Amino acid sequence: MPNYLAIDAGGTSTRAVFLTHFGQCLGYGTSGGGNPVSRGFDGALEALLAASNSAVGDARAPLAAVTLAMAGASLDLPTHLFQERFVTLGLTGQAVIESDLLAAFYSGTYQDDGYALIAGTGAVAARIAGGRLAAVADGTGWLLGDTGSGFWLGHEVARAVAAALDGRGTPTALTNLVLEDLGITVDPDSRTQGRVSAQQQLIVKTYELRPIELSRFAPLVFAVPEDAVAQQIIARCAAALAQTLRAVVDPAISGPLVFGGSVLTKGGTVGAAVLTQLGQAGESAGHPDGAFKTEPALVADGVVGAAVLALKRNGEMVDATVFERITSSLASLRG
Amino acid sequence: MPNYLAIDAGGTSTRAVFLTHFGQCLGYGTSGGGNPVSRGFDGALEALLAASNSAVGDARAPLAAVTLAMAGASLDLPTHLFQERFVTLGLTGQAVIESDLLAAFYSGTYQDDGYALIAGTGAVAARIAGGRLAAVADGTGWLLGDTGSGFWLGHEVARAVAAALDGRGTPTALTNLVLEDLGITVDPDSRTQGRVSAQQQLIVKTYELRPIELSRFAPLVFAVPEDAVAQQIIARCAAALAQTLRAVVDPAISGPLVFGGSVLTKGGTVGAAVLTQLGQAGESAGHPDGAFKTEPALVADGVVGAAVLALKRNGEMVDATVFERITSSLASLRG
Repeated sequence: MPNYLAIDAGGTSTRAVFLTHFGQCLGYGTSGGGNPVSRGFDGALEALLAASNSAVGDARAPLAAVTLAMAGASLDLPTHLFQERFVTLGLTGQAVIESDLLAAFYSGTYQDDGYALIAGTGAVAARIAGGRLAAVADGTGWLLGDTGSGFWLGHEVARAVAAALDGRGTPTALTNLVLEDLGITVDPDSRTQGRVSAQQQLIVKTYELRPIELSRFAPLVFAVPEDAVAQQIIARCAAALAQTLRAVVDPAISGPLVFGGSVLTKGGTVGAAVLTQLGQAGESAGHPDGAFKTEPALVADGVVGAAVLALKRNGEMVDATVFERITSSLASLRG
Repeated sequence: MPNYLAIDAGGTSTRAVFLTHFGQCLGYGTSGGGNPVSRGFDGALEALLAASNSAVGDARAPLAAVTLAMAGASLDLPTHLFQERFVTLGLTGQAVIESDLLAAFYSGTYQDDGYALIAGTGAVAARIAGGRLAAVADGTGWLLGDTGSGFWLGHEVARAVAAALDGRGTPTALTNLVLEDLGITVDPDSRTQGRVSAQQQLIVKTYELRPIELSRFAPLVFAVPEDAVAQQIIARCAAALAQTLRAVVDPAISGPLVFGGSVLTKGGTVGAAVLTQLGQAGESAGHPDGAFKTEPALVADGVVGAAVLALKRNGEMVDATVFERITSSLASLRG
């Protein structure tokens, strides 16, 4: 009976799982970033093979197919270049690239219709119909959108602190947290040429970072739950994510809702606020938010979904029992 | 009697004026960007000397002093390096760097107390007291602030269009203007992997630009006055600029209000909206907005102010008559 290899290739880490056609996970491996867009083709391939080698181990069992879950921009890559390299691992069939959004969705469900909302470094929502991406909203990157993402949160924190320092914005406990994070210690009342000295230092230190590194300030917003400015940023984050999800809802498609990404899955503050914004998910089938038939499933990454896709795309049946087998046997391997 | 050279060194262009101690402008010259931070020291110096040579012409009259108006970050530069080079132009005294914010303020008034609000590529407000910068708000750059600037406007336009394309945002006439500007012509209903194709193209084209180049979209917001999304962006721009100005107001300091930068001085839409936000400038002395004693003076650049500073800092008297002499004689030279 055929075995499969499923890989979740992210920007900073890669996960691979080796599994049977009935969803029993036999081996698991990880490595560094496996995204060809950010790592380059050779670096990404190296990461994919490293994780895959760990997963397959000494088995070298024939692999009926390899499923590679990657960010959207990778979908046009020449898959035969991947395929050739996987022959050494025992691949007899095809290497197929699938969207990381689909992998995130299928990490929370085995059903073929439903919705995913992901807020990690970026932010994106998708409607899945018949096992395919039917609509995608946001995921437009840090400059054009990704509203409600980790970058967005960190950026809003930095802007709120800059505004608080010169009196444009409300004073906030975030100021000390950001200044401390950047190692800025100056007399808060000191000014040079009219400008608050701490703000001048903030400017210097911030522009030394790459813009995307502002996401480092995102966790600070959850560190001061009593702070009004932090609360407003979280509320706007949740409102934006709810709006992104609403943009992909089609009342004709109902199914599970999957939440992914650290902003939605860690701490629970933003996830709960998004559900409040949506006015209680699953309220009624007539209501647009009635499209979500379950409480959101929280997924940490896309490796379960890559495994589900490996089976489904190769004609294997994935029902509740098989899905449960994948998740529980993988959890054992991950320890 | 002493003559002076005053230079307004901007990021993209430099203006120099040669004038007498009683404010009669004798020569005027321009050149390219004269900011040492963006151009490098040698490139900036070359631009400064080119504009100065044009201004001084064949006169080579003794120059009692040179005043260089430059962006804040230039204030710590070693002025003796400038000074040495200006000796060839007849400089006998000092070369002194002054803040471009002060030069903008003094381009609209000869008084020593008051306020300036500038919104060009960046956005910044200042309170001037006793001829010095007493408080500065914003001017924190495109990533941390500059809220209401030309970059901010262009960025908001791009984000609004990205959101409109996938249904997160309200449909807007800005969409076609932006897509046209970027040469994007695709079937508006076409999707690939769930994503609207026009949005995918927008992402590709936008990330090919340097972030700051998004300011190219700023003028579009004024091209569709009936559009609700454009109106909201303009309203938020004006609200932010009013807030930036409020942050520097000290009820104890009242005086003229000077508006600079293309966002505030071209078209008039934003300037008028800022004044509305402030609740009629000059309403009453008790009201914080009563700090502004005049309707705003609109200034195109800082060269008049550099001239005013050249005289004032060297003990020359600048009253209404001298100020009027500077502006009218300079206007004649500029033709």
